[in-house]
Amino acid sequence: MKKTQITIKDIARELNISPSTVSRALKNHPDISQVTKDLVNKYAKDFHYKPNALALSLRTSKNNTIGVIVPEINNYFFSSVLSGIEQIANQADYNVIVCQSGENYEKEVRDTKALISSRVSGVLASLCKHTTNYDHFQDIIDSDIPLVFFDRICIGIITDRVVVDDYAGAFAAVEYLIQSGCKRIAFYSSPFHLEISKNRKNGYLDALRKYGLMVDESLIRVCDTREEAIMITPEILDRPDRPDGFFAINDHCAAGIMYAVKSAKLKVPDDIAIFGFSDGELAKACDPMLSTVEQHGFEMGKNAATLLLDKIDGITHGQYTNKIVKTNLIIRGSTK
Amino acid sequence: MKKTQITIKDIARELNISPSTVSRALKNHPDISQVTKDLVNKYAKDFHYKPNALALSLRTSKNNTIGVIVPEINNYFFSSVLSGIEQIANQADYNVIVCQSGENYEKEVRDTKALISSRVSGVLASLCKHTTNYDHFQDIIDSDIPLVFFDRICIGIITDRVVVDDYAGAFAAVEYLIQSGCKRIAFYSSPFHLEISKNRKNGYLDALRKYGLMVDESLIRVCDTREEAIMITPEILDRPDRPDGFFAINDHCAAGIMYAVKSAKLKVPDDIAIFGFSDGELAKACDPMLSTVEQHGFEMGKNAATLLLDKIDGITHGQYTNKIVKTNLIIRGSTK
Repeated sequence: MKKTQITIKDIARELNISPSTVSRALKNHPDISQVTKDLVNKYAKDFHYKPNALALSLRTSKNNTIGVIVPEINNYFFSSVLSGIEQIANQADYNVIVCQSGENYEKEVRDTKALISSRVSGVLASLCKHTTNYDHFQDIIDSDIPLVFFDRICIGIITDRVVVDDYAGAFAAVEYLIQSGCKRIAFYSSPFHLEISKNRKNGYLDALRKYGLMVDESLIRVCDTREEAIMITPEILDRPDRPDGFFAINDHCAAGIMYAVKSAKLKVPDDIAIFGFSDGELAKACDPMLSTVEQHGFEMGKNAATLLLDKIDGITHGQYTNKIVKTNLIIRGSTK
Repeated sequence: MKKTQITIKDIARELNISPSTVSRALKNHPDISQVTKDLVNKYAKDFHYKPNALALSLRTSKNNTIGVIVPEINNYFFSSVLSGIEQIANQADYNVIVCQSGENYEKEVRDTKALISSRVSGVLASLCKHTTNYDHFQDIIDSDIPLVFFDRICIGIITDRVVVDDYAGAFAAVEYLIQSGCKRIAFYSSPFHLEISKNRKNGYLDALRKYGLMVDESLIRVCDTREEAIMITPEILDRPDRPDGFFAINDHCAAGIMYAVKSAKLKVPDDIAIFGFSDGELAKACDPMLSTVEQHGFEMGKNAATLLLDKIDGITHGQYTNKIVKTNLIIRGSTK
């Protein structure tokens, strides 16, 4: 004969804390204090709380697996995010299925279908560069599978989201360039329909405006890979009114700019300062090392996975969070 | 009423080609010629071959998922391998579950247990640096789950394996350093119990011997990260008999050596030449760019996944393959 099981909500009510705190305390989440963890665990033990039985009943007919769709696995930022997701998922006894869209819209659509038919418990996704139709993500929601976007988010669909403070990070980077003497700053962006591009561009523009610098549209270009940067930068450096600073949407692109600047026999940072965005091994391998906006991919992954697990566990049913991970500037040799 | 299904073996016998070729032709594998693919697909269509039905019956009670255990996800080489695995698995309608051991033996053991209890169809694994007991991998075999090792393989267990030609790659790199004038070459290695370390060290030693150079054990060090290389290299550069060349077991380590050499006001490659191993974005970000052994992580991933799928499909039952992916030298500015 079975006894009635107590639930996370019972524990929360009894201890006068939120169900989310109880859930995280039971999962030994680092954000929860040891005192709270001890309290929750003692109560859970005394009243024979059975996490797995409950979880199982909530997740009827689903497996303990979360699916992740990333544009590229072998990209330092996305692999850092995956690493953070894997850590949180693993602590909660979830498997992580990884799909890479390869920046290909059709593949992204196939990935969503595959994850739905695999009956994953939830999906974490970052949009491919070329995605402008979001029906396949709506299908996930309509299949009653929780969905969280990270980094390249979709604002047309209501979900939990995790982004870095793209606007503030970009503003701070461009402000740093201005304060260290740059007067003409170019911005290399990902395609403009992406939220990260819009937000970083706004940060860039507002920093210029704050310091009364003119906006030159010809210095704002769609270019987000090393190869493209090596291709388009020489022409810009050849102009009589060439820029004295570059703000690049990622470190790969910044490394390409640095290559082009050095090839043109100009000095970094004396003639031209360069600011990247991401921070990984790549930034430290550049010479001079790259000043960049630290994007905390690992933190982003942990946050996204935590939001998704809370949704799967029904703790945040009907509530949607916009989690913003703070960036900070890493100042190295590529800026004055 | 069901008709009798024809199998891959029937098609193979009928067309006088191997079952493995039939399977790959049906999966549109790049190694198979278009002529063969057309032939196989026509026969399969004419005789109503049903891949999914067959696969399903073979994989009774298993899900269409393969598990991958890697030391680190956010490492360019391993994320390239994952990328290749994902591509092949995706073409064959398999999901990929990714676990990272984080170079932690206990986590690696937990990962193997988790994958077994998730009843994955097969496992691909690369050992953590500190693993010297392999019982948990034997458990996978004993659970009747196909297992393929890649890169950091385990030779104590009979499985399919994919490695790069570590010996030949190391020999060629060190030979290149010698032919371009280096006389005292240091070797930074991963822990010596790993097969990749043994094989690369043998390549290094044999190249020195071929050219009559003395082996100096004090120049052979366990050091495989950027941070360690920055720490231990200054002392070696301070010696009156300092080396004039370094061969590093990976590009991160090589980038650290380059940093230390430049910090000591020595010139790369004139005073000291540096050769890495891997080739990724990191190698091109270094200045001068890094000469390195191209390790073809993406190819390795595709090969490992193909071997595993053949094992899952029962095509190579009882046969074990040692696949060797050829490396090649990429010569850039860090060597003369």
